[in-house]
Amino acid sequence: MSGSRQLVLLRHGESVWNKENLFTGWTDVNLSDDGREEAREAGRQLRERGYEFDICYTSYLKRAIHTLDLVLEELDMEWLPVIKDWHLNERHYGALQGLNKAETAEKYGEEQVKIWRRSFDVRPPALSPDDGQTPARQRPYREIPEEELPLAESLKDTIARVIPYFEEQIRPQLMNGRRVLVTAHGNSLRALVMYLEHLSEEEVVRLNLPTGVPLVYHLDENLAVEEKKYLGDPETVAAKMQKVANQGMIHRS
Amino acid sequence: MSGSRQLVLLRHGESVWNKENLFTGWTDVNLSDDGREEAREAGRQLRERGYEFDICYTSYLKRAIHTLDLVLEELDMEWLPVIKDWHLNERHYGALQGLNKAETAEKYGEEQVKIWRRSFDVRPPALSPDDGQTPARQRPYREIPEEELPLAESLKDTIARVIPYFEEQIRPQLMNGRRVLVTAHGNSLRALVMYLEHLSEEEVVRLNLPTGVPLVYHLDENLAVEEKKYLGDPETVAAKMQKVANQGMIHRS
Repeated sequence: MSGSRQLVLLRHGESVWNKENLFTGWTDVNLSDDGREEAREAGRQLRERGYEFDICYTSYLKRAIHTLDLVLEELDMEWLPVIKDWHLNERHYGALQGLNKAETAEKYGEEQVKIWRRSFDVRPPALSPDDGQTPARQRPYREIPEEELPLAESLKDTIARVIPYFEEQIRPQLMNGRRVLVTAHGNSLRALVMYLEHLSEEEVVRLNLPTGVPLVYHLDENLAVEEKKYLGDPETVAAKMQKVANQGMIHRS
Repeated sequence: MSGSRQLVLLRHGESVWNKENLFTGWTDVNLSDDGREEAREAGRQLRERGYEFDICYTSYLKRAIHTLDLVLEELDMEWLPVIKDWHLNERHYGALQGLNKAETAEKYGEEQVKIWRRSFDVRPPALSPDDGQTPARQRPYREIPEEELPLAESLKDTIARVIPYFEEQIRPQLMNGRRVLVTAHGNSLRALVMYLEHLSEEEVVRLNLPTGVPLVYHLDENLAVEEKKYLGDPETVAAKMQKVANQGMIHRS
């Protein structure tokens, strides 16, 4: 195993909006207390098994950044370099952001909500460019060309921004033998799993990563998967996987 | 003011070793609860006055990193890029690290301790290269050429590593109009103040920055100081400056 390349993916845990069952997307909400504890537990799982890293990546969203901060604290590795990039953000849910499931169903109909939740390439309604939620009007994105920023994304759109970022920024690190930790979101991590495991569109739509459970890949020199495993008590991991499977993606994004 | 260049320096607050009056140096100890609150208060002072930043710098030591994390949380700017570099670390106190004031005086004599505390260019006793505390034997420094890493530093040595780092990494950011925040340590920040204000050796030895108080510089296009101010309630700032003046540098490094 020592010659192989190590990539660990970690999905952030519960946010304060998950509890209220709101579409979050790029809305920058905090982790809940439970979400912070999920992050610490992920850090402990990594520490107990002696994992080390050379570089970390996360999104521009504080629920992923705080997750990484808490993991690094548990690992006693706060000094590790951390790259934050908006390409690792959650799927942008457009005008659905801030709505709850009931409101959304009432406004758009149950069938339409199912389509948005379960389709690969259907976008939710877009934000208006002059909406205050529009990324171009928010501080973190002010230096990014407006045409690169989404007003709403299908899962396909999210994957189409995450994979080039991985190929340009993260892949070279892995090829150079750097051990990489990525803390991000349900949909941006789906993109990475799809890429690494060559999933079909149908498979990636069905994929639901458990929150707060480190997913460890050992990759060969061409980044083919040699080994894949979730870290943690098997019963806890199984229960978490069941939970996200039951919820569907709407609750956790 | 809008055309000028903005640099904010912030010294971390109380660590768990400050309370016990131990030489800390490169020992990677946590902030105390009071130190965490000092960081949050610094963040609130910046937020209330509407400060914004483009890039942040900190050391490899968690007391400075956590200070920055807490400031960014208060500012709601977790997404800002953060560069961590060992050149911004505290002065390395060599074999004194982990000793308290009484032990040090007993072992080396009161007079010698005064010299170490108050001189510009006298080094404390060096660590042995095979001591576990030696930077080259610790994870964060494993990729740095061993000859670049100190076994003990005078204040002059610390300044001699901080200023070239500032000139190579931070100065170009300021010249490009980027607003910079540096959270670091008593002695690494002394180096920056010496550089910006052209202090003499005598002046820099006497300089004691208050902890947890943002020091704001507005600089002209050649980085000459146009304005300098401490942020915060004037009485609190004055009391903090008095406190560090009374303590001398031994307590806070």
